Amino acid sequence: MPVPVVLVLDADPPPRLGRLTGRARIVRTGPADLAARLPEADVLLVWDFASDAVREAWPGPGARPGWVHTASAGVDRLLCPELVASGTVLTNARGVFERPIAEYVAGLVLAFAKDLPTTLALQREHRWHHREGRQVVGSRAVVVGAGPIGREITRLLHGLGVQVALVGRSARRTIHGIGDLGPLAARADWVISAVPLTPATYGMFDTRFFGLLQPSAHFINVGRGASVVEADLVAALNRRWLAGAALDVFADEPLGAESPLWEVPGLLISPHLSGDTVGWRDRLGEQFVDMYELWVDGEPLPNVVDKERGYVPSEDLATDNTVSTDGTSLD
Amino acid sequence: MPVPVVLVLDADPPPRLGRLTGRARIVRTGPADLAARLPEADVLLVWDFASDAVREAWPGPGARPGWVHTASAGVDRLLCPELVASGTVLTNARGVFERPIAEYVAGLVLAFAKDLPTTLALQREHRWHHREGRQVVGSRAVVVGAGPIGREITRLLHGLGVQVALVGRSARRTIHGIGDLGPLAARADWVISAVPLTPATYGMFDTRFFGLLQPSAHFINVGRGASVVEADLVAALNRRWLAGAALDVFADEPLGAESPLWEVPGLLISPHLSGDTVGWRDRLGEQFVDMYELWVDGEPLPNVVDKERGYVPSEDLATDNTVSTDGTSLD
Repeated sequence: MPVPVVLVLDADPPPRLGRLTGRARIVRTGPADLAARLPEADVLLVWDFASDAVREAWPGPGARPGWVHTASAGVDRLLCPELVASGTVLTNARGVFERPIAEYVAGLVLAFAKDLPTTLALQREHRWHHREGRQVVGSRAVVVGAGPIGREITRLLHGLGVQVALVGRSARRTIHGIGDLGPLAARADWVISAVPLTPATYGMFDTRFFGLLQPSAHFINVGRGASVVEADLVAALNRRWLAGAALDVFADEPLGAESPLWEVPGLLISPHLSGDTVGWRDRLGEQFVDMYELWVDGEPLPNVVDKERGYVPSEDLATDNTVSTDGTSLD
Repeated sequence: MPVPVVLVLDADPPPRLGRLTGRARIVRTGPADLAARLPEADVLLVWDFASDAVREAWPGPGARPGWVHTASAGVDRLLCPELVASGTVLTNARGVFERPIAEYVAGLVLAFAKDLPTTLALQREHRWHHREGRQVVGSRAVVVGAGPIGREITRLLHGLGVQVALVGRSARRTIHGIGDLGPLAARADWVISAVPLTPATYGMFDTRFFGLLQPSAHFINVGRGASVVEADLVAALNRRWLAGAALDVFADEPLGAESPLWEVPGLLISPHLSGDTVGWRDRLGEQFVDMYELWVDGEPLPNVVDKERGYVPSEDLATDNTVSTDGTSLD
């Protein structure tokens, strides 16, 4: 068998694939040349996971790689009908982002509970103004999205003494179905979204949803930006329907300097960094190389995306030691 | 027995002591009248715990109450040689502040790890600037002060996957003695002080100490301000001997608007609020009333301060389910 061609949709800094020397022919490409090079590729590594180039180039003529791996958790930017219908296996970077994102969410919950943004603002004014924080222990959270990221968020918040309800597409064992979201959100202190972007989640957090929340509640989105109707969230914050929100993801990224979102009172903006901790690119590169070795040997790949659904179905999660709030295992 | 006189060194808002109606004669006083009223008091409730009035009034003439209770964890503002030498029982508010302070510290650790202050600063500039955070899981902390607050901090950080070493006055079971502090601090990512203010802790965090730290380390003080030589911390931050610090307590409180501390890069200033969550004053009042009922019945009081040492000795802590980092119970 000839040395397989691994086409890399590149980004800066590039992946470190030295371990593949002699076992793969690495071809790096930018978005402009992707369509021309796809037919020669056995494998496509989507390193520039913020690009729409795959979705745009895939429907063209010629052969297509049998395996596409994306260095991201979400696959929404890749999926086009032709890729979904093809026999190509699509895998994602499950395992790299869960813990960092859960820590980021826990940090936001604590920062909001202790009113840290106000503390920093008062410091700039040299003002000693004592205020009372809130206790996190005993507060209520609902985590929307029962994939690995939502489960890790659930686990970490539970460890802080938060009463967490996890909501997935359909009810199963300790996971609530989407039909329970309204009543759970209505009594939550923290509403956290870790949903993938699919037709079912597009725009799901809208005026109707924010109208359910308690005025003391906070909304946090670490899933995908387009699941939130941003104008509706802004209006809800301006009406004090909720106490605050944090968005790490947006319908259009990067957020332009002229966006009105930067200035919305009570809204904390971060540049899609919740999952990215020192060494994360190395971990993503290592993960791909490990998976490549399985692929070369004809072994089954982990993290296979259900292309119709748009995510790795949780029943296919191989190793899962998630515990729910009552300590039982989540399926 | 006549109705006992409970003298309250008052503050605004006052304690809600309605449950004592008919069982105590409540006399409220400010600092100016404290000396004159002390001789008539059976019990002194130090509600204005930020006042030095007790230490100043106590040495005067006349009888003294047999029991003094302070609505604070620290007792350093109260202690004078005459009170220490007297037969008066001194109790503190152990049990009210531990969990809020531990949550506050966990919030700071996560906020520093995820660089939240920079995120907020960039938002003000409308700048989308992706950065990499640090993982908290697997990082190393040393908590100085093995009282109930230090133990609760240890427990909560351990739950976040931090490797925590707890340092007390003397080594016992899972607690390190003060002699281990240097080597532990030298490899810590997070150094957290929850020490009481005593002659042994006054100024213990100085240039020599900050010189031990890693450049990536953060220092957090939720104990007492005067344990830190503030000028030494400022110099260490300016020299980049450590990455950042957070002070919730200060040698002089409130911090004046003219203090240079507000503007030190990498220093987060908060107004002595780490233990104060919604309802905290009610909890402090309830605690005093519960203790008063024991006192009237001649029962032993909890939270009795060793006046020579300046804190409630940990061996006297009645109920303690603290676990150390290896899961064993702390004594």
